[in-house]
Amino acid sequence: MWVFVWEKGYQETDSVVSSVTTKAKGVTVTNTSTLGFRVWDVADYVIPAQEENSLFIMTNMIITMNQTQGFCPELPDKTTVCKSDANCVAGSSGTHSNGIATGRCVLFNGTVKTCEVAAWCPVEDDSHMPKPAFLKAAENFTLLVKNNIWYPKFNFSKRNILPNITTTYLKSCTYDAVTDPFCPIFRLGKIVESAGHSFQDMAIEGGIMGIQINWDCNLDRTSSLCLPSYSFRRLDTRDVDHNVSPGYNFRFAKYYSHLTGAEHRTLIKAYGIRFDIIVFGKVAWLPPPLGALVQTQASGLARDKGPSPHLLSAHALYHDFFFFPCHLEAGKFDIIPTMINVGSGLALLGVATVLCDVIVFYCMKKRYYYREKKYKYVEDYEQGLGGEMDQ
Amino acid sequence: MWVFVWEKGYQETDSVVSSVTTKAKGVTVTNTSTLGFRVWDVADYVIPAQEENSLFIMTNMIITMNQTQGFCPELPDKTTVCKSDANCVAGSSGTHSNGIATGRCVLFNGTVKTCEVAAWCPVEDDSHMPKPAFLKAAENFTLLVKNNIWYPKFNFSKRNILPNITTTYLKSCTYDAVTDPFCPIFRLGKIVESAGHSFQDMAIEGGIMGIQINWDCNLDRTSSLCLPSYSFRRLDTRDVDHNVSPGYNFRFAKYYSHLTGAEHRTLIKAYGIRFDIIVFGKVAWLPPPLGALVQTQASGLARDKGPSPHLLSAHALYHDFFFFPCHLEAGKFDIIPTMINVGSGLALLGVATVLCDVIVFYCMKKRYYYREKKYKYVEDYEQGLGGEMDQ
Amino acid sequence: MWVFVWEKGYQETDSVVSSVTTKAKGVTVTNTSTLGFRVWDVADYVIPAQEENSLFIMTNMIITMNQTQGFCPELPDKTTVCKSDANCVAGSSGTHSNGIATGRCVLFNGTVKTCEVAAWCPVEDDSHMPKPAFLKAAENFTLLVKNNIWYPKFNFSKRNILPNITTTYLKSCTYDAVTDPFCPIFRLGKIVESAGHSFQDMAIEGGIMGIQINWDCNLDRTSSLCLPSYSFRRLDTRDVDHNVSPGYNFRFAKYYSHLTGAEHRTLIKAYGIRFDIIVFGKVAWLPPPLGALVQTQASGLARDKGPSPHLLSAHALYHDFFFFPCHLEAGKFDIIPTMINVGSGLALLGVATVLCDVIVFYCMKKRYYYREKKYKYVEDYEQGLGGEMDQ
Repeated sequence: MWVFVWEKGYQETDSVVSSVTTKAKGVTVTNTSTLGFRVWDVADYVIPAQEENSLFIMTNMIITMNQTQGFCPELPDKTTVCKSDANCVAGSSGTHSNGIATGRCVLFNGTVKTCEVAAWCPVEDDSHMPKPAFLKAAENFTLLVKNNIWYPKFNFSKRNILPNITTTYLKSCTYDAVTDPFCPIFRLGKIVESAGHSFQDMAIEGGIMGIQINWDCNLDRTSSLCLPSYSFRRLDTRDVDHNVSPGYNFRFAKYYSHLTGAEHRTLIKAYGIRFDIIVFGKVAWLPPPLGALVQTQASGLARDKGPSPHLLSAHALYHDFFFFPCHLEAGKFDIIPTMINVGSGLALLGVATVLCDVIVFYCMKKRYYYREKKYKYVEDYEQGLGGEMDQ
Repeated sequence: MWVFVWEKGYQETDSVVSSVTTKAKGVTVTNTSTLGFRVWDVADYVIPAQEENSLFIMTNMIITMNQTQGFCPELPDKTTVCKSDANCVAGSSGTHSNGIATGRCVLFNGTVKTCEVAAWCPVEDDSHMPKPAFLKAAENFTLLVKNNIWYPKFNFSKRNILPNITTTYLKSCTYDAVTDPFCPIFRLGKIVESAGHSFQDMAIEGGIMGIQINWDCNLDRTSSLCLPSYSFRRLDTRDVDHNVSPGYNFRFAKYYSHLTGAEHRTLIKAYGIRFDIIVFGKVAWLPPPLGALVQTQASGLARDKGPSPHLLSAHALYHDFFFFPCHLEAGKFDIIPTMINVGSGLALLGVATVLCDVIVFYCMKKRYYYREKKYKYVEDYEQGLGGEMDQ
Repeated sequence: MWVFVWEKGYQETDSVVSSVTTKAKGVTVTNTSTLGFRVWDVADYVIPAQEENSLFIMTNMIITMNQTQGFCPELPDKTTVCKSDANCVAGSSGTHSNGIATGRCVLFNGTVKTCEVAAWCPVEDDSHMPKPAFLKAAENFTLLVKNNIWYPKFNFSKRNILPNITTTYLKSCTYDAVTDPFCPIFRLGKIVESAGHSFQDMAIEGGIMGIQINWDCNLDRTSSLCLPSYSFRRLDTRDVDHNVSPGYNFRFAKYYSHLTGAEHRTLIKAYGIRFDIIVFGKVAWLPPPLGALVQTQASGLARDKGPSPHLLSAHALYHDFFFFPCHLEAGKFDIIPTMINVGSGLALLGVATVLCDVIVFYCMKKRYYYREKKYKYVEDYEQGLGGEMDQ
């Protein structure tokens, strides 16, 4: 029976325009020999200041202060350690070089000599990564995610800050799957833990977290049933057994100038967590009488189809026009897929009858009784034919 | 009849690679007590300097100059106002704090005492938002949008700067739906008004504008019919009755250093409009004879399917291979969906004939005349058999 | 025969979550009269420091140093050249102005007078673009692309740094379609050449390069067959005959402050290449016995369907449940599309038999022999009936 619902119905997909904005909050202090006592706020650890669908929060860093253009010894590794200038090729530069070799072999420290390079000096030494993470307190920072969706076809739009959310609630709430499932403010530590990872581990080398917003909408009479649900997943898979080039980091610099005009910079190798907000969704539309029945199947189907990032896929299920001709002028009825589905369905029905006959003929007892019934009309037909000949 | 067109044809969707670049232009001056006379150009109000599919233009700001690391009283609110140090917990920091409490209770101004914090001092006071917007002149800034699309399957590519657009025209034109529908340079004020909003209102708190580029392409013989059309929509829905956390803003800082090495910064809370460029599209392909007939349906169908952001969906309608075998080697023919559609179609046809018979036999008057015709071939067949036996 | 495979199978599409991170490496030196000897590293030429799916590398630039807020003559063009103050409208500003006209007409150089503007002075003169590109050495920079994919439906995830890639290999390798097809480190020059363009030409005016990662996955027993393949394409089409507003560039500034607090900046008009990483993909699933057979068709089909940027489309081909009922509880079986496809197929079969009969009866010689065979079963049947009556 339920198959008929599908024969009669057809499915169309809608695409949705989604916009996302994010805002991080949180302050922490660090006290190190190099930097001394220092406060870190949003403007310090969010790089760049704004992005379209993601937000990077620096959790760990290797800072190289007061770099100036000049000449200095390269970091020692098997390619740069030298005994004499003969070992250094002027103008050469490897993939991992910090500068262009001058051809001189100079003292790196008391014992080791390396090739001199023209570079921002002193060159960065990123051999030792801070553990625990330099900004480990980022675990308690919060992230506000604002998401607006719009279904062009249904001209239906909604935001994840639901109508019943007040300013006071938004000032104080934090997302919790159980107690506050609709609060769009997330504690960073909780996001990572919900994905089954340790924030402090992730904070050291950095990584990518996906914040998935699932819109599961039923666009019948009331739109209040269209609600977001949040899920979290670490997007940069870490196979512990194959830990090649893990985490996420990049370099940026803050440039300063002396009155003399000589420029110097502070180079920062920033490790951190990038939060990519991915909006999923589906919308089901059904005339209320059928809604209850097909809803379960619709959700099941949609689960099969899986979510589509950046692109909400909306499934509208219609009863066909024989039952709801009103849909025809509703402009939401599409004949093509209906034809295809109905066609397939009818073919199946044909087969079904054939199968029935086969089963009945060869598998059932007392099959001749059945046969009689089945071919009774043939006799009628002969009679009809006979009657005709009489004319 | 028209159903046959659909039986014979089949539909496949293509995905398209799109690239977008933007460039803003415009200069304005402000004259305030804090900043004095100041000129603002692109490098000042576009943050960050470049993004993949969007552009942020700062329209309003709260600027806090010469912040340095230190200790200062927190902004007064119900959690920070204090009578004595007893009210301030050292090391504490709320979600909305500007720093970490030192535990001291100090004078904020002549009358109010608040908890002291370690922070970038002085702390930002964003309680008063400039009205009208600080950079209200942004209404007259212009935005050049360059968009290239490429359909891999048809290996068809085009840009929104059409071949007939000259450098001189591009230097002077501004988009207008009526007079200049193909000029890719948009006046910001016009974009917002086209979406039915007031630029000056939006400029105060900021927001997200969607610039939709619709490519409606008919890839028959001539590709000159493949033209972009532009539409505008505000993506961050504002329900005036539920105005919780409206607009769009973020914080960033410009860092300076004294010769002494002491760092200071200018913190800017930037309100502004982010323009997200969303590329939609569809492409219809038909052998010319059928083009005119099906085009209407195709467009209708495409309208049903709705646009897909970030992902152009191309619908190619083909006449089936019985009619255009050439398509087979054209490499654009796909047998699977054709089979499925033709199959469904045939099932429908079969049912149709059956229905006809039923109707004719049992509903029509003079049905036996009809039956004669229908079974006439049987007699022919017998004759044929007889004739054969004669051999 | 092969049609049956398709009758039995059905196709469903999956969407995939993909995350991309990039890291550029490379250093170069320049020696110009304005800048003197200068080293350029990642923090200097990557703007902004990180993006979600793309990376911009500056290859050419027009630098204007030590700009300060003030008044200076505008660049001469047909709108700004003046003879007297009468030619300059105070407060006016054109689309391409660098500032707001003061109304005075001043000397631009010994011979030319232009309208004075309030602007960042001196105004940028971008009339002469450096040729060859200022950072032409960027051709030898390298780009590491890390990509993780995840199919929600199959809960299958993989990264483009394959398990057999060692840290040592990753330190030294460079992508080559033939020798190192799985090395995720690309030489910029090679990327552009692979797309059929000249890096040095592109470096001058800038442009957009697409790095396409195609995941062609066969999720049968072993997942080691799921491998990425890389392809490159220039996304900003250049029609040499219609070279209006070519390339890609934007402006940004580095801000400095004197002890006096007076701010000055260095304005950079950055030309460069933006590398957009676009992830394509498909996944085929088949029970091994059929895998070999259908794989070819699957790949063919997927090729027809074309890639979908930002959104991997996964095709799972199943043997139907009559043959592999185990799939039913595997939770990967979807009854709806199977019904539709099987339905269509059966319709086709029905037609096929009819066609055969028609052909045989009316086109073949010795058709009565055939007829005998065709109706032989009837006699068998009668016999069976007879035998039954004996009971």
